[in-house]
Amino acid sequence: MMRAVVLEDGELTVQEIPEPVPGPGEVLVDVLRAGICGSDKSCAIHGDGFNRASQALMGIDMLDLDHPIVFGHEFVARVVSYGPETQQTIPEGTRVVSMPMLLREQPVLLGFVGPDTPGAYAERILLSEALMIPVPDELSTDVAALTEPMAVALRSVNRVDVAADDVPLVLGCGPIGLAVIAILKARGIGPIVAADLSAERRELAKAMGADAVVDPRQESPYAAWMQAAATDDPARMAPPTAIFGQLPLRPTIGFECTGAPGLLQQIVAGAPAGSRISVAGINLDPDTIEPAHGILKELDIRFSLYYSPEEFAETVGLLASGEVEAAALITGHVGLDGVAAAFSRLGTAPTEAKILIDPAR
Amino acid sequence: MMRAVVLEDGELTVQEIPEPVPGPGEVLVDVLRAGICGSDKSCAIHGDGFNRASQALMGIDMLDLDHPIVFGHEFVARVVSYGPETQQTIPEGTRVVSMPMLLREQPVLLGFVGPDTPGAYAERILLSEALMIPVPDELSTDVAALTEPMAVALRSVNRVDVAADDVPLVLGCGPIGLAVIAILKARGIGPIVAADLSAERRELAKAMGADAVVDPRQESPYAAWMQAAATDDPARMAPPTAIFGQLPLRPTIGFECTGAPGLLQQIVAGAPAGSRISVAGINLDPDTIEPAHGILKELDIRFSLYYSPEEFAETVGLLASGEVEAAALITGHVGLDGVAAAFSRLGTAPTEAKILIDPAR
Repeated sequence: MMRAVVLEDGELTVQEIPEPVPGPGEVLVDVLRAGICGSDKSCAIHGDGFNRASQALMGIDMLDLDHPIVFGHEFVARVVSYGPETQQTIPEGTRVVSMPMLLREQPVLLGFVGPDTPGAYAERILLSEALMIPVPDELSTDVAALTEPMAVALRSVNRVDVAADDVPLVLGCGPIGLAVIAILKARGIGPIVAADLSAERRELAKAMGADAVVDPRQESPYAAWMQAAATDDPARMAPPTAIFGQLPLRPTIGFECTGAPGLLQQIVAGAPAGSRISVAGINLDPDTIEPAHGILKELDIRFSLYYSPEEFAETVGLLASGEVEAAALITGHVGLDGVAAAFSRLGTAPTEAKILIDPAR
Repeated sequence: MMRAVVLEDGELTVQEIPEPVPGPGEVLVDVLRAGICGSDKSCAIHGDGFNRASQALMGIDMLDLDHPIVFGHEFVARVVSYGPETQQTIPEGTRVVSMPMLLREQPVLLGFVGPDTPGAYAERILLSEALMIPVPDELSTDVAALTEPMAVALRSVNRVDVAADDVPLVLGCGPIGLAVIAILKARGIGPIVAADLSAERRELAKAMGADAVVDPRQESPYAAWMQAAATDDPARMAPPTAIFGQLPLRPTIGFECTGAPGLLQQIVAGAPAGSRISVAGINLDPDTIEPAHGILKELDIRFSLYYSPEEFAETVGLLASGEVEAAALITGHVGLDGVAAAFSRLGTAPTEAKILIDPAR
């Protein structure tokens, strides 16, 4: 038996559940750290919204809300023992990260299903050997736990084909927004403008590399963005837009990292002509936009969710080399007993970004 | 004086108005053919919708609805006489096309302003010498009049970075949808799936190069699209999608060419994962989408409106060489007296695509 945080009847409680048993090609690992993701909280509260979306898309429920779920798709772990049909090239005791997936005939999304294949809100989990990546010695266990959200951010950045002269606006400085800022900074992109309602998060954004931060209640993020993009050097200006002609602006890229209702239209209305907008914030409800703005300005809206295996592996390298500095993202640690309280804090405390679970606490 | 079709108090009437006078760098030309564009009709009926959008974007009214407007931004013309400060390298009598713009200090969008700088629903108009392109001898006057809408379609195709293995769905077989089909066909892209409510337009779509046509009341365009994209050749499959894995589909590109309310969400919901969607249809009202579909499928929505000077010039070449065959798009001719009736027909007659005005009739 082992301890795990289980969602049942809408409540998160620590329970004793059977230790999972590795199948062919699978590995049993100790969870060293697990990250609490905003989408975990969304699943706990709005699981039916995910199911509406997945039903519409795939005719299946993404979440089985009638049975217990063990969350946790962000983690770093240590190899305990190998199941059958494994190569065992990574020694027992090695720290590893992995995309949160079991490569079974019917692939399992770790962190969204039940206790048989638990997510990382647990002492032990199963991984697919083929997806495990050893954690380099120079990468701390805490920061290794950020691999997954950093990979999400890397994907979001890659989705808009970032080029050297682009000027970004990041809406929302939660973990994904902050991670986007860190990646843009590492790539030398800037000035970076970031907006968040929380003063503490705006400070975090600065720590991660934002050059200008905006409180949207005080100032328009879009005005600040245009000011940051302003240039009188024709060589740096964005390509002429069809209907607005040559604007005295560098190319502009936007990152919607809040998922808040109405924010998509807000950035569509506020973005300079020709902007490429990456949408990583998850809004599970219908939302209204005015296509006329998108059309007249020939905007791109590129939705982003996940990452390729290559992007996941690249992220490990970016974190290990120190090229991307992510440690400031971590604002607290809890044991399994502290997860339910941390869920509440995430919604109300403006100081929180990424809270890590350490099951050994 | 000359004859022109004037929109005044919501009515289109043929009026005698003063012949326009070319300013510096400008040229007086005889209109040989002018195309009636769906957006002209939208302006006549929903001009306030354009103004809402342009007010939000630029703080100005795109249309001055309190004064007369002479429509007509699609045209082929013949050089009559040059104004001051002109090079006059194109001989008088030469057929020319041009982007619908006067390069004044405050640029004028031809076809959306008043009788001083009339659009091509008139016997004579002004052009900027620098934008004039001579019509090659092998290009008929009728087809030359299609340069502008074909350039819009070329832009829409260029906006989604079309590649050889892409499988397109074209929603709406009005002039722009048909032109998109012709350009995709010329590029060897296919099979092309096209959908329209009108049987006559579906026949036109076939004539322009569609490989499969769908009546959305009878069959799902999205099911037909997926069927057309199906492949069991791994080398032709779209890149693996993050959350859906490798789909047995070639890459998919969608063209929303209707502007009908709700169609954007319909294609967002119906598109295979990873689709790139070009939106050329103009919907001036707020519209609702479900971002969850876009996110889970990592869709691209790329809005498209206009064209670069290079794309406009390229279109002349594509039409002149016969590489793109567009003549089937033309479903009728009228004189200036017939324009008001043609406007009504465009809304009700399912057989109409592009109606050309010949002011000499």
